[in-house]
Amino acid sequence: MDIAPEVIKAKDASFTLATLDTDVKDRALKAMADALDANRKRILDANALDVGDAQKAYEKGELSYSMVKRLVVTDEKIDGMIAGIRDVISLKDPVGETMSTLELDDDLILYQIRCPIGVLGVIFESRPDVVPQIMSLCLKSGNAVVFKGGKEASNSNAALFDILTEAAYSSGIPKGSFVLMRSREDVNTILSMDGYIDLLIPRGSNSFVRYIQDNTRIPVLGHAAGICHVYMDEHADMKKGLEVMIDSKIQYPAVCNAVETYLINSKMASEVLGTLDSRLHDAGVEIRADTVAIGMMPHAIPAKDSDWDEEYNDLIVSVKVVDSVDEAIEFINRHGSHHTDCIITEDRDAKIRFIKGVDSADVFVNASTRFADGYRFGKGAEVGISTNKIHSRGPVGMEGLMIYKYVLIGDGQVVKDYVGKDARRFTHKVLDREFRA
Amino acid sequence: MDIAPEVIKAKDASFTLATLDTDVKDRALKAMADALDANRKRILDANALDVGDAQKAYEKGELSYSMVKRLVVTDEKIDGMIAGIRDVISLKDPVGETMSTLELDDDLILYQIRCPIGVLGVIFESRPDVVPQIMSLCLKSGNAVVFKGGKEASNSNAALFDILTEAAYSSGIPKGSFVLMRSREDVNTILSMDGYIDLLIPRGSNSFVRYIQDNTRIPVLGHAAGICHVYMDEHADMKKGLEVMIDSKIQYPAVCNAVETYLINSKMASEVLGTLDSRLHDAGVEIRADTVAIGMMPHAIPAKDSDWDEEYNDLIVSVKVVDSVDEAIEFINRHGSHHTDCIITEDRDAKIRFIKGVDSADVFVNASTRFADGYRFGKGAEVGISTNKIHSRGPVGMEGLMIYKYVLIGDGQVVKDYVGKDARRFTHKVLDREFRA
Repeated sequence: MDIAPEVIKAKDASFTLATLDTDVKDRALKAMADALDANRKRILDANALDVGDAQKAYEKGELSYSMVKRLVVTDEKIDGMIAGIRDVISLKDPVGETMSTLELDDDLILYQIRCPIGVLGVIFESRPDVVPQIMSLCLKSGNAVVFKGGKEASNSNAALFDILTEAAYSSGIPKGSFVLMRSREDVNTILSMDGYIDLLIPRGSNSFVRYIQDNTRIPVLGHAAGICHVYMDEHADMKKGLEVMIDSKIQYPAVCNAVETYLINSKMASEVLGTLDSRLHDAGVEIRADTVAIGMMPHAIPAKDSDWDEEYNDLIVSVKVVDSVDEAIEFINRHGSHHTDCIITEDRDAKIRFIKGVDSADVFVNASTRFADGYRFGKGAEVGISTNKIHSRGPVGMEGLMIYKYVLIGDGQVVKDYVGKDARRFTHKVLDREFRA
Repeated sequence: MDIAPEVIKAKDASFTLATLDTDVKDRALKAMADALDANRKRILDANALDVGDAQKAYEKGELSYSMVKRLVVTDEKIDGMIAGIRDVISLKDPVGETMSTLELDDDLILYQIRCPIGVLGVIFESRPDVVPQIMSLCLKSGNAVVFKGGKEASNSNAALFDILTEAAYSSGIPKGSFVLMRSREDVNTILSMDGYIDLLIPRGSNSFVRYIQDNTRIPVLGHAAGICHVYMDEHADMKKGLEVMIDSKIQYPAVCNAVETYLINSKMASEVLGTLDSRLHDAGVEIRADTVAIGMMPHAIPAKDSDWDEEYNDLIVSVKVVDSVDEAIEFINRHGSHHTDCIITEDRDAKIRFIKGVDSADVFVNASTRFADGYRFGKGAEVGISTNKIHSRGPVGMEGLMIYKYVLIGDGQVVKDYVGKDARRFTHKVLDREFRA
């Protein structure tokens, strides 16, 4: 089956999708949630096929046990999918929002209004849970979507897709709004369809994201690498800082917002490095230290130059001693991936220098890099983390030369306190307050 | 001279530039304005060289007279450049603005803060006036800039660049923040420097912009084509509509926001097309009409299929009869360039359908397409008009799937009333009012 005609139909559908009233979309979302509930057996049966195949692959050593585990859909996971769709229903419809209003003259008023992007191409690996999440977010925001999940989950994805589209289309959503890609060839086909797809969101390995970036003219949202830093300043609260540093590394090392390099101010080195060394060693973390740090870290091995540009995604960390916050900033801007970087300090001037100077999407003060996440940022579901810097449409003045960064001011919080049983809950309360460091 | 090391220096400078206080930037801008005033002779002498060369090229038939005229710098034009820089001083510094604040937990507050993009590559043709405009906008917004002006203005551009950079650097702006490209080879060099340049803004012919888009991985802001439409609805005020249609075409036909195609509702055709035909003919406009319209437009020639996808940038217009606002919307989404499109109607439902349905950066009601301009939109100077649709950074939730469109609700206003002697003035007053059609 050729995917191209389906993508062209999705573009057509997107124009109608952009005009739908909120209640039409919410009714469709409700129908989608109900359809999942009514079709549990169909989902579980399809999933059993995938899990069976995965089990065989695991036995042959072709797939890891954690991959097999992530693939499994249970009744509880279906409950989670349903709850996720209901969450999206409760989100405010952003389409049509007035962003600004300007009178140009008597009876000549300029409004700035939110509207959907059009057709999104979403390519992700692994878990079937993502199918309802992506479809519901795209529907509520009025975007059509052409998407592909992991090969291992193909039966589960197809079942979920069919159930969800049937429910959506029978509730007034334009037919063709959702397209499921079935193969890698489909992905290669859509990469050249820049006249029909407005934005690609690939999620997966660095090499996969780079392959996409290198082979399409369609704008790509996301990030290839997550090389994050924690800098411990000379005015740091050491105890607080150590917890943040450890959490940033070990709370979930396989993901993009885990730290890869610690920078330690030379005035703190003798006080910090010994403890840091034993904490990391106890946690099973391999330490790669520069020539200064290695003398104070008994368990460290020497870092190579290439270590400063590497994303380990593993229980490995590099450590470097620097002489000032400015040196830390310069190092981060040169070696980081402009994703998430953190300073540990109690000094107001150092905070401000770091916040202003670090050119990253997320700049944190005294808080774990692992907070860089759509759910934790109060956005509900997330489509990806972007290190892109462009964003404008229509006549562009000075405001179009701008992008934002997220500045998170904490007091030593760590993510591990916010997960699992008895987790602290986010308040996500909107404040009316100007930024202050 | 190799441009690459200069671009690398600009990237370094951009990190410092992003951290400068407003008063440092404003002082530098004032010094730049004063320097232009103090160096009038140097500017005029350099310009005389360019104009002399252009005159010779004109005599040989290599350059149009209007090109020679646009090249000329006078004392009055220098006054304009100085006033332009002073305008930028009066603009609010966007760097560091708080866009949103969210408490995640006790003492864990998330702020969204504006910051510069980094290094911009700006490539434009023709007029030397653009040099101070671009430099002052980039400086105030904290961006470094690598730019190139038209070949014909090279002496003028170099003189302006040298005067302005001397003034800026001696007022505390980091050296290397501004780079002037001198040749087409320089442009080709920077196209591959995606590690150092964050955004390209090319202004020029469609083929030039497409060349840039096809030869770089750097995001390109702007537009290749400006295929704009005016649709006259069945509920149009004909008199009002005719003035808007004529203004949209003839007020300045060579630019991107001039209309290229009129769509006329079939219920209005017999009433409108005759008058439109004579108005256009009197104004020297060539009319290319579809098979229905041609019968009612004595001066028209038949439109070919290719006419619906053509940007004339000239006194030529195509005319098509459609049966409904929905047909008009579909035609515009298929054949337009998503730049600026207008409906003429008094009917609220038609307005809303058109505003929601047309997938363009600027969607107008009863107002000339020529209003699509940064100055008219109250933005001060403009860096370009973007038909891009992406814009996100950091964790992206549903809001990151959104872009905006500008909706302009008018009452028949035309741009010609806003230019020249005794022009109506824009009020540019901020209103606190939700969108209503």
